[in-house]
Amino acid sequence: MEYIKNIREKCPLIHFITNYVTVNDVANAALAIGGSPIMTDEILDAPDMQNICNALVINTGTLNKNTVESMIASGKRANELGHVVVLDPCGAGATPYRNEVIRKLMDEVKFDCIKGNISEIKALANVSSKTNGVDASDADQATRENLKDVFKFAKELSKATGAVIAITGVIDVIADSKNAYTTDNGCREMRAITGTGCMTAGVIAASLVANPSDKLKAVTAGVVALGLAGELAKEYAKGTGTLHIGLIDELSNMDDIKLEKGAKIERFEI
Amino acid sequence: MEYIKNIREKCPLIHFITNYVTVNDVANAALAIGGSPIMTDEILDAPDMQNICNALVINTGTLNKNTVESMIASGKRANELGHVVVLDPCGAGATPYRNEVIRKLMDEVKFDCIKGNISEIKALANVSSKTNGVDASDADQATRENLKDVFKFAKELSKATGAVIAITGVIDVIADSKNAYTTDNGCREMRAITGTGCMTAGVIAASLVANPSDKLKAVTAGVVALGLAGELAKEYAKGTGTLHIGLIDELSNMDDIKLEKGAKIERFEI
Amino acid sequence: MEYIKNIREKCPLIHFITNYVTVNDVANAALAIGGSPIMTDEILDAPDMQNICNALVINTGTLNKNTVESMIASGKRANELGHVVVLDPCGAGATPYRNEVIRKLMDEVKFDCIKGNISEIKALANVSSKTNGVDASDADQATRENLKDVFKFAKELSKATGAVIAITGVIDVIADSKNAYTTDNGCREMRAITGTGCMTAGVIAASLVANPSDKLKAVTAGVVALGLAGELAKEYAKGTGTLHIGLIDELSNMDDIKLEKGAKIERFEI
Repeated sequence: MEYIKNIREKCPLIHFITNYVTVNDVANAALAIGGSPIMTDEILDAPDMQNICNALVINTGTLNKNTVESMIASGKRANELGHVVVLDPCGAGATPYRNEVIRKLMDEVKFDCIKGNISEIKALANVSSKTNGVDASDADQATRENLKDVFKFAKELSKATGAVIAITGVIDVIADSKNAYTTDNGCREMRAITGTGCMTAGVIAASLVANPSDKLKAVTAGVVALGLAGELAKEYAKGTGTLHIGLIDELSNMDDIKLEKGAKIERFEI
Repeated sequence: MEYIKNIREKCPLIHFITNYVTVNDVANAALAIGGSPIMTDEILDAPDMQNICNALVINTGTLNKNTVESMIASGKRANELGHVVVLDPCGAGATPYRNEVIRKLMDEVKFDCIKGNISEIKALANVSSKTNGVDASDADQATRENLKDVFKFAKELSKATGAVIAITGVIDVIADSKNAYTTDNGCREMRAITGTGCMTAGVIAASLVANPSDKLKAVTAGVVALGLAGELAKEYAKGTGTLHIGLIDELSNMDDIKLEKGAKIERFEI
Repeated sequence: MEYIKNIREKCPLIHFITNYVTVNDVANAALAIGGSPIMTDEILDAPDMQNICNALVINTGTLNKNTVESMIASGKRANELGHVVVLDPCGAGATPYRNEVIRKLMDEVKFDCIKGNISEIKALANVSSKTNGVDASDADQATRENLKDVFKFAKELSKATGAVIAITGVIDVIADSKNAYTTDNGCREMRAITGTGCMTAGVIAASLVANPSDKLKAVTAGVVALGLAGELAKEYAKGTGTLHIGLIDELSNMDDIKLEKGAKIERFEI
């Protein structure tokens, strides 16, 4: 498949309602992979922005009452228009308010992909009314030993929500109701840069817009692209500052040949 | 002229009400060229901040009800104090709300410079009551072929608003009611970094404060400085991450000798 | 002492209510030194976030009515829980609103450390009801000549507030009611990067959590770490862009051997 080529040709316009911590990196990562980002979170503005966009990414990192209202309204508008919608439930589980917001988002918006680390995804599964009966995995992270458990959890969550579930960690698990991919890309040092998860959500959205025929593969390509960019940057980075900048460089130079060559993925029926 | 030297000597204190996507770059670009940035957008705080500043830059990128109120009140205060005021109508035309905000800003604040890409500037011309009778150009961007059309549009808009009009693109057009400069500085890759336009607005403001005798030239110097910094960084950048950082490096090392040597400008009577 | 080792082992979770200009650097600096940052400023969310954190940093840079409410409520919660609380009174003195906010924060929250440049610290001393009788220093910055005057001011302010006072400048002064350190680390070029002060506050918070036995030394270690990182980066930086990135690299590579070797500190009884 030509995941990256398709992104660069279609240049998806992605509307982000995202946290102010990593927003600059999110925008630059979206541009680097060939998309076009636009950020707005005002209720009078955000839903209308969907009219000219191809996708919406909702990230709950620095949510507030006003932006939550815009997340829901924009999500509904995106659903009406059939746009790609990605949820990054950043910080889910950390506070009662975050859980309440996640519940509302899950109730009112349909997502094409839900991406988070395992504790965020478990918190989401625990609070959403859609996910009654989904047993949150006991796993604290996906390992070779507990993969079946994580697959079962992701599969049930995907069934309940209709979304591709991307659980990021040392091993990333990307699953729908039938199949899963694991990816081993990325490097330990990436955890010491803020925003790699937020950037991944944007790259996933771009990939879903440009590669609509197989959502599971499109999400997996997005997750791999980010991880691989970090790995490549790691080779010459002198610390987390240059790793951060190198990651953007590598995303901007990413192509399908590099992606295919560098992808450490495995496919499972689940 | 000693545009950059004057900025570094006067160190203009610039108040920004700007979007949270590129705000860090905007601050670092203002510092790099020799200015001093301060950001605040709370209505109880922002207008008073003008008392200690030399200029105001208003950018509508991630506007909201609260910050729009601050933009207008701070703009009026800046006008009362005779400070330089620059408008970057980021995203003008994208939604009805943005157009309404642009209309209000144009009605209530007088700008020394309005800077945007051609679609933003056309949207602004279409919504402002001040610009009745200004025929928005048909051009989608300024080219060698349609320059006269773009000049005519910019000239009328400058007459109607009293502002220097800076239309950025592959060719930048900077015009007042009598004269225009075109600049060919910059590189294609800069479009894949968010914030180059936002940074330009800040550098323009610094240049206008430090070089008040000829506003058209002062704005042109600011536009050229940004473009040239990108060109110089392009020579060694390995991707959009290092281009972004190199651009700030080059701005911090910019001087009038480099500016004069590197400027690809042409002057027109219009 | 093993200041940095302790931070990397304990990985303090630090809640920041901070300005949106430098927030990305603040998060990356906290990660680079071995801490873990989380940002939230919504009143329904922020106080609860203290339940899972070790520290709170309040920075008034881009304050607004909503975030000020969260600063006070989160500060009180942090105090109840016995967490480290650091105040960075960014922009104190610039407007009446900032002074009013600083007064409220000083009235309602107890701080372990207050860090700012001398004009911010003087403004804080002037507005706080706790600091009646503290004579603000006449000094515009700490120099070898006026050190005694600055020490006296910092000592009185520390007595009145119970906080370690960190006054940053060409010479940094860190003082409690009995002792002071001066540090000569850092380089002139760091003033041309936004956010070095904001990052310092986060590194101080991490150091205070991990090194609770001697607060004065813990704060000093944080101030030195930032300055030294800048110095080391200065050796190879090509401008303020690469200085900025190099500073994060150097923080991520910092250890106690480098810190001890590079620290230019002097201790005084005051």
